[in-house]
Amino acid sequence: MIKNQAIKKPIYPYSEWEVIEDNFTIENNYRNETIFFLGNGYLGFRGNFEEGYHGPKGSGLDGTYINGFYETEVIKYGEIAYGFPEKGQTMLNVTNSKIIRVFIEDEEFTMLEGTLEEYKRTLSLREGMLKRNMIWRSPMGKRIKIEIVRFVSFTNKHQAVIRCEVIPLNFTGKIRIVSALDGNVTNITVDNDPRVGSGLHGRVLNVEHKEVASGVGLIVQRTKNSNLSLACAMVNQLETANRYTAADLEEDLEIRTEYLIDAQEGIPVTLNKFIAYVTSLDCAEDSIAALAKEIVSEAHHYGFEGLKKDQGQYLDHFWDTTDVEILGDLALQQGIRVNMFHLLQSVGRDGKTNIAAKGLSGEGYEGHYFWDTETYILPFFLYNNPEISRKLLEFRHSKLDKARERARQMSHSRGALFPWRGINGEECSAYYPAGTAQYHIDADIAYAVKRYMEATEDAEFMVHYGAEILFETARLWADLGSFIPNKESKFCINSVTGPDEYSAVVNNNCYTNLMARVNLYYAYETAQRMMRNYPAEYKLLVKKIGLSDDEVSFWKRAADNMYVPYDEKSGVYLQDDSFLDRAPWDFENTPEGQYPLLLHFHPLVIYRHQVCKQADLVLALLLLGDQFTLEEKRRNFDFYEPFTTHDSSLSTAIFSIIASEIGYREKAYQYFMSTARMDLDDYHGNTKDGIHAANMAGTWMCVVNGFAGMRAYEDGLHFNPTLPQNWEGYSFKVTYKGRLIKVEVERNGVNYSLLKGDEIQITSNGQKMLLR
Amino acid sequence: MIKNQAIKKPIYPYSEWEVIEDNFTIENNYRNETIFFLGNGYLGFRGNFEEGYHGPKGSGLDGTYINGFYETEVIKYGEIAYGFPEKGQTMLNVTNSKIIRVFIEDEEFTMLEGTLEEYKRTLSLREGMLKRNMIWRSPMGKRIKIEIVRFVSFTNKHQAVIRCEVIPLNFTGKIRIVSALDGNVTNITVDNDPRVGSGLHGRVLNVEHKEVASGVGLIVQRTKNSNLSLACAMVNQLETANRYTAADLEEDLEIRTEYLIDAQEGIPVTLNKFIAYVTSLDCAEDSIAALAKEIVSEAHHYGFEGLKKDQGQYLDHFWDTTDVEILGDLALQQGIRVNMFHLLQSVGRDGKTNIAAKGLSGEGYEGHYFWDTETYILPFFLYNNPEISRKLLEFRHSKLDKARERARQMSHSRGALFPWRGINGEECSAYYPAGTAQYHIDADIAYAVKRYMEATEDAEFMVHYGAEILFETARLWADLGSFIPNKESKFCINSVTGPDEYSAVVNNNCYTNLMARVNLYYAYETAQRMMRNYPAEYKLLVKKIGLSDDEVSFWKRAADNMYVPYDEKSGVYLQDDSFLDRAPWDFENTPEGQYPLLLHFHPLVIYRHQVCKQADLVLALLLLGDQFTLEEKRRNFDFYEPFTTHDSSLSTAIFSIIASEIGYREKAYQYFMSTARMDLDDYHGNTKDGIHAANMAGTWMCVVNGFAGMRAYEDGLHFNPTLPQNWEGYSFKVTYKGRLIKVEVERNGVNYSLLKGDEIQITSNGQKMLLR
Repeated sequence: MIKNQAIKKPIYPYSEWEVIEDNFTIENNYRNETIFFLGNGYLGFRGNFEEGYHGPKGSGLDGTYINGFYETEVIKYGEIAYGFPEKGQTMLNVTNSKIIRVFIEDEEFTMLEGTLEEYKRTLSLREGMLKRNMIWRSPMGKRIKIEIVRFVSFTNKHQAVIRCEVIPLNFTGKIRIVSALDGNVTNITVDNDPRVGSGLHGRVLNVEHKEVASGVGLIVQRTKNSNLSLACAMVNQLETANRYTAADLEEDLEIRTEYLIDAQEGIPVTLNKFIAYVTSLDCAEDSIAALAKEIVSEAHHYGFEGLKKDQGQYLDHFWDTTDVEILGDLALQQGIRVNMFHLLQSVGRDGKTNIAAKGLSGEGYEGHYFWDTETYILPFFLYNNPEISRKLLEFRHSKLDKARERARQMSHSRGALFPWRGINGEECSAYYPAGTAQYHIDADIAYAVKRYMEATEDAEFMVHYGAEILFETARLWADLGSFIPNKESKFCINSVTGPDEYSAVVNNNCYTNLMARVNLYYAYETAQRMMRNYPAEYKLLVKKIGLSDDEVSFWKRAADNMYVPYDEKSGVYLQDDSFLDRAPWDFENTPEGQYPLLLHFHPLVIYRHQVCKQADLVLALLLLGDQFTLEEKRRNFDFYEPFTTHDSSLSTAIFSIIASEIGYREKAYQYFMSTARMDLDDYHGNTKDGIHAANMAGTWMCVVNGFAGMRAYEDGLHFNPTLPQNWEGYSFKVTYKGRLIKVEVERNGVNYSLLKGDEIQITSNGQKMLLR
Repeated sequence: MIKNQAIKKPIYPYSEWEVIEDNFTIENNYRNETIFFLGNGYLGFRGNFEEGYHGPKGSGLDGTYINGFYETEVIKYGEIAYGFPEKGQTMLNVTNSKIIRVFIEDEEFTMLEGTLEEYKRTLSLREGMLKRNMIWRSPMGKRIKIEIVRFVSFTNKHQAVIRCEVIPLNFTGKIRIVSALDGNVTNITVDNDPRVGSGLHGRVLNVEHKEVASGVGLIVQRTKNSNLSLACAMVNQLETANRYTAADLEEDLEIRTEYLIDAQEGIPVTLNKFIAYVTSLDCAEDSIAALAKEIVSEAHHYGFEGLKKDQGQYLDHFWDTTDVEILGDLALQQGIRVNMFHLLQSVGRDGKTNIAAKGLSGEGYEGHYFWDTETYILPFFLYNNPEISRKLLEFRHSKLDKARERARQMSHSRGALFPWRGINGEECSAYYPAGTAQYHIDADIAYAVKRYMEATEDAEFMVHYGAEILFETARLWADLGSFIPNKESKFCINSVTGPDEYSAVVNNNCYTNLMARVNLYYAYETAQRMMRNYPAEYKLLVKKIGLSDDEVSFWKRAADNMYVPYDEKSGVYLQDDSFLDRAPWDFENTPEGQYPLLLHFHPLVIYRHQVCKQADLVLALLLLGDQFTLEEKRRNFDFYEPFTTHDSSLSTAIFSIIASEIGYREKAYQYFMSTARMDLDDYHGNTKDGIHAANMAGTWMCVVNGFAGMRAYEDGLHFNPTLPQNWEGYSFKVTYKGRLIKVEVERNGVNYSLLKGDEIQITSNGQKMLLR
C-alpha cells in the first residue's frame, strides 16, 4: 500500500549543501530544533537558540545529549511477570552549555520580542556548522547585527564551539553578554505515546561541583541511579576593540561569565565560547573535571579559526568518500545529503557507544539503540567508512556478557540474547511482544558481522570480536529452536516476533528463520575456518565460552533442517505459520486519520489481522537476495505490499529497493520519495522528537541498493543500475575490500571507476567485469 | 501430571462442623486470618484479633472488606498501547471496627505477651461464628478467662457483632476495655507477585466525619478517586455486675469508648459491640450515616442473643438444602463443609456485587471478579440456592453498558465484551495476553445463563436479563470471528487466550470456539423463542439494542460453520491451532521449586512449549459433556494430562471430574484430594492472601459432578454415581426446576429421593427414571 504521499511543499528552500531557514515561527520551532541539531556521534546539541527560548509550552525542547550517558529508572508494570526488565534507561539531557545571552542596555535579545529585520539560519553540510545571521531591532528601537555560529567538533568528540558576534547598528551604549553553563536540566516526559515517553520524572542529574573564574567554568554532575558522572567545562574569550569589564557569577545550578561592554556603533563585539564534555564512561571518574578543563584550554589556545578549519577538512574527506550526487533533482539531492550528514553526526564511533534511533537529535525512543543499527545504518558506514561500522560491532561485542546474562534469564542455558532496545547492554523493552520477542536482533547482528567480514576481510576483527558474537548468537538459536515432529521434524523457532510488529509472538516468522539459518551456517563456517587458520585463537575462544564440537555440528544440522514457511499453492513465503489464517485488515474502512494503526487499535485487533507495519518477508528479499529468484521476489512483493501500512519509518526504503529490483520503477520512485525528505519535510509529523536515523540510511540504500541495484554477495559486488525518469544521472562511491569505487549512472550508460586500490572484479547487470 | 500431593498432616484437627485452632503461633497467623475469616457476601472480616496484632512484619494483615467497594488508581505501564485499561480497581480495606482492647491494671492483653494457659479458636459452620476461648496469664501474673465471639450477620448484610467476656481469675482490680473504630486503614502493597499486588499506595480512604458519644460512634470515610463513601457505626453495651465508668474519646482517625471497671475476681465483664457498614453504593450518599446508626441501634435493641439465633436459623436452612455428607472420611467431610461455608460467606447476592476470586477473605487479586464466578462458583449456588445464582447474573447484566463500551474500544462495532477482571464492570487487566485476550469470558457468562435457564425455567429472568446478555455476547463473537478461506472458510476466532494461560494469544482456542458456538446457538434459539412467546418484549429489546434479523441468522451460520481444531491422526481436539507445533515442556528437568512456572519463567518461554497451567480442552469435556463420546473424553484426557501442571487452583477439580467420568477412579480421587482441603491445609502456600473460592466450589463439583456424575443437559439431570473406595457413602441435595432432590450413594447402591416439588424425570446410569 502506497499512501498518497503527494510531494509536499518544501519546508526549507532547496539547496545543494545547506539547510536554510529564512523565517522564524514559533509553530515550527520544535521541529527545527531537530533539523538544525549538531553532533559528532558523542555529543549532540539540539538546534536551540543560544539566548534561550521561552515560547508556549510544548513548542520546544532544550536538549544536549551525550551518546550512551543515561539514567536508569524502575519500570512500573500494571501486571509484572518473570523476566520483565526491571529498569529502563534514558539518554540524559545534560548540562546546558549553549547559553549566550545578549542584553542591549536593559533589553534582552530574544527571537520572541522586537523585530527581526533580517533572519537566516543555515546548516552547512560542508562546514559542519550552524549559523544564524540576523539584524534585530529591539522594542526600544536599538538595532544590532548579530551572527551566531556553532559547531560540535568532528575531530575531538568532547568539544564544541560557539562564536557570537554583535555589532551595534544605530547606537553606542552598554552591551552585556552572558555566557553560562546550566546544571538544571531534565528530560521530557510524555505519558501517552510509547514512542516518546521516558520513565524519568524531574531532575536526575545532581550538581556535585561548580566553579567559575576568569571566564573559565566547570560543572560536575552525577546521576542518581546509574551513578555516572559528567564534567562540562567552558572557556570564554571576548574579542572587541571596545572597553569592557568581566565578572564571574554562580547562581543556583548555573555558572556564568558576564561581559559588560561599552559598545560603539559599528564596532563588533565577539565572544568565543569553547566547550567540553567528559564523562565517567570515558575515563576514571576523578579525571573527568581536569580533562574537560584541559580540552577547553587547548581549544582556546588553538582558536576558533583553527578548529573551524579542522572541521571543514574532516567533512571534505567525508564527502570525498561518501557523497551521493543526484543530477536533475535538487530536492532529493538535498534530502540525501542532509540524511548522510545527520547519520555522521549521530553515530557513536568509539566502540563504547552505538547509534540511537533518533541519533543525538532528540529524546524519542529514550536514546535507545535498536536493530536499526545493524540492518539499516551499518551498511551505509560499511561501504563508506568501514572503520565506523567496525566500532558499531565492537560495541555489540562489549555487551556480550550482558547478553549472556539475559539469555539465562530467558531460560536459555547457552548463548547470548542481545537486548531489543537499550543503551547499556541490558534489555529495557517493557512490552515484550514488540520487544524481547524480537529475537531476530541476534541474527541481525550476526548478519552484520558477516557483511562486515565480506566487505573488509578484517581477520583481526573476526578472531577477536566477530567469532564470539557469531558463536554466542548461533548457540542461542540452537537452544531456542526445536525439531518439531508435526512440522516434518524441521527446526522450528516459535513464539517470536519478526520485524513486522503488527504480528507478534508467532511461530516460524520466515524472516527470523531465514536469518537464523544464515547465523547458524556462518557461525559453523567461521568455526571451521578458525580451526584451520587460527587454531590457537580458536582454542582460546572455545575455552573461554565453553564451546563443544557437538554444538558446532548441531548448528549445521539445525540450519540444514531449518523450517521455512512457504505456501506451495501461491508460491509465497509465509510471514509466519499463521499468516494465511488471519482475516485481511479492512483497509477500505480505515480512514487516514487512523494511521499509524498502533495509536488507534488495541494490539489484539491488529495482531488478528493480515496487516503489516513494515517490510518483513520483503526485507529478507533484500538481505538474502541470493536465496530468491527474481520471480519469487516479484510474487512475494506483490503479495505483501497490499497488506503493508508502512507505519514504521523502516519500511518504505526496503519496498523501494525491491521494487527497483523487480522492475516496478514507478513504485520504486514513489517509495523513495517518502524516504529521502521524510524528516526535512516532516512527513510523519514527529521530526520534533528527533530524526529517523534508520530511514535516513534507507535513503542511501534506495539509491545504492535500489536504483543502482548494488548487492554484496559472497562473490563480491553486484550492480544493476537503473535511472529514475526524472533524473539526469547520479553517482556514488563505495568502499569495498580496501578499494574506493565510483559508480556513475547517466542516461546513456553506467561508468565504474576504481579510485583507489587494486583491481577488483564486480558484476554489472549479471556480467562480470574487472575494475582496474 | 499429578504432583505428589501426599496427604498432608492436617493443620487443624478434623471436625465435622468446626475448624479449631488449639495452638497460637506467629508463623501461622497470617494464614489463619484467612481461614477464620467471617463474611456474608457484603462484609468480610479477616480473622484478626480484636485486641490487635503486632507481630513481625509480614506475619499478618488486618483486613475488613466490603464487596464491590473499591478505589481506582492509574495503571502504570512500562510501554503503553492503545486500549490498555487506564485505571485499576482495588477492593478497599475499610474502617476497622473489630478493635476491642483489654487492659488488666496497666497490662494490655495481647497474644504475644504473657502466657496462654488455655487457647482455642473455633469457627463454627453451623452457628456462623468465630470464638476464642482463652485463659491468659499476664506477665505480672494476673489470670483472666477471656472469651471473644463474633459474627457477620447473614440476615442483615450491613451488620456484625462482637461479644467479649472477661473474668478475673486470681485478682480484683481495674480492668479497662476499649472499643474503637479506626479510620487509618490501607491496603497491602506487594510488587513482585502479580497475584497479590495492588496499585494502591498509602491511605486512600479519607476520614470525613467522626463522632462518638455514650458508646455510640460513627466514622464516615471517602475514597480519593472513585469518590465512594462509607459509614461505619458502632454501639457498645457493657454488661457486668461490677461498677464502672465509661468515656468516649477521639484521637487521630480513631474513635473509641473506654470502660473502666472495678472488676472483682470471678465476676464477668461483657462487652457487646454492634457494628454496621453502609456505603454510597447502597443508598444515597447523604443517608449512609443515618442508616448505619439506625442499624446498630436496632441491633442493640434486638440484642446479641436474638442476632445469634437468627444467624443459626439462616445456617440451618442453608445446610438443609446444601449439605454434602461424606461418610467414613472426616477430613474430606470437614474440607467440603468449610469450602461451602466460605463460599456462602463470600458471594455477593444483591445483584450489585459478585464474588471475588478470594471472596472477602483477603486482598489477593485485588478483590476482582473473574470467570471463576460463572464457571466454577455459580453452579454450586445454582443447584442449591438458585436465587443467589440469579443475582450473580443480574450483576453481569447491570454491567452490560460498560461491556458494550469496552467492545467498542476493542474495535468491535457491535456486542459487549465483559472485563476479564475488575469490580465495577470496567476492564482492569493490565496484562492483556492473560487478560483482555480471554474473550471466553463472554461465552462463560452466556453458558451460565443457559444453565441457569435450564435449571430454573425462570422466563422472567430470560426476558429481562438473560436475552440481552446472550444477544450482546453473540454479537461480539459474530464480530470477532471470520470465515477464513485457508481454513476451508470455517468461522475462526483468532488472537485469543483460552482458559489455559500458559498459551496466550492463539488462533482457534478449541474451548473458546466450542463455547462461542454454544453462545451463538443459544442466542439464536432464544431469539426464536422470544419472537414466538414474548413478541412484545422481543421487539422492545431488539429496538433497545438495535438488533437486526440478519444478525440473528448470522449467529446460526457462524455456529454452523464454527472451526474446531482437531487432529484426525490422534483423534485429539487441539487446544489451539498450533498446539502440536510446539515443543513439549521439559518436565524431567524442571525441579519442584520451579512451579508455578509463571513465577520462574518468562511468558515467552512458557508460551512456546506444550505445557498447560490448567484444564482447557478438558474443561470443555465437562461443560459440553454431551458433545463428546466417552472414548473421546478418555483420549483427550490422556493427551492433555501429562502437559498440565495445575499451577492454577482451577485445574484439579476439573481433572478429577473427568477422571471420574472416564473410569480413572484412582486419579479422580487423587485430584479430588488436592481440592477439598487446598486452603485448610494450605497446599499452595498462599492461603494467607485469601481463599481460593473457585477451587472451593470445585470440591463440590468433584463430588456432585465427579463421583456422582451429575450433568445437567437439555433433557434434564443425569447421574452416574460411583463411590470412592475409602468412603462408606455420601449424600447431597440438588435444587432443580423447583424440586429438591436428595442423592444418597452407598456401597450397595444409590438412592434418589424427591424432598420437595412435583415428580420429575432423571437419568441414572443412562436409565431414565421418574422421581416422585
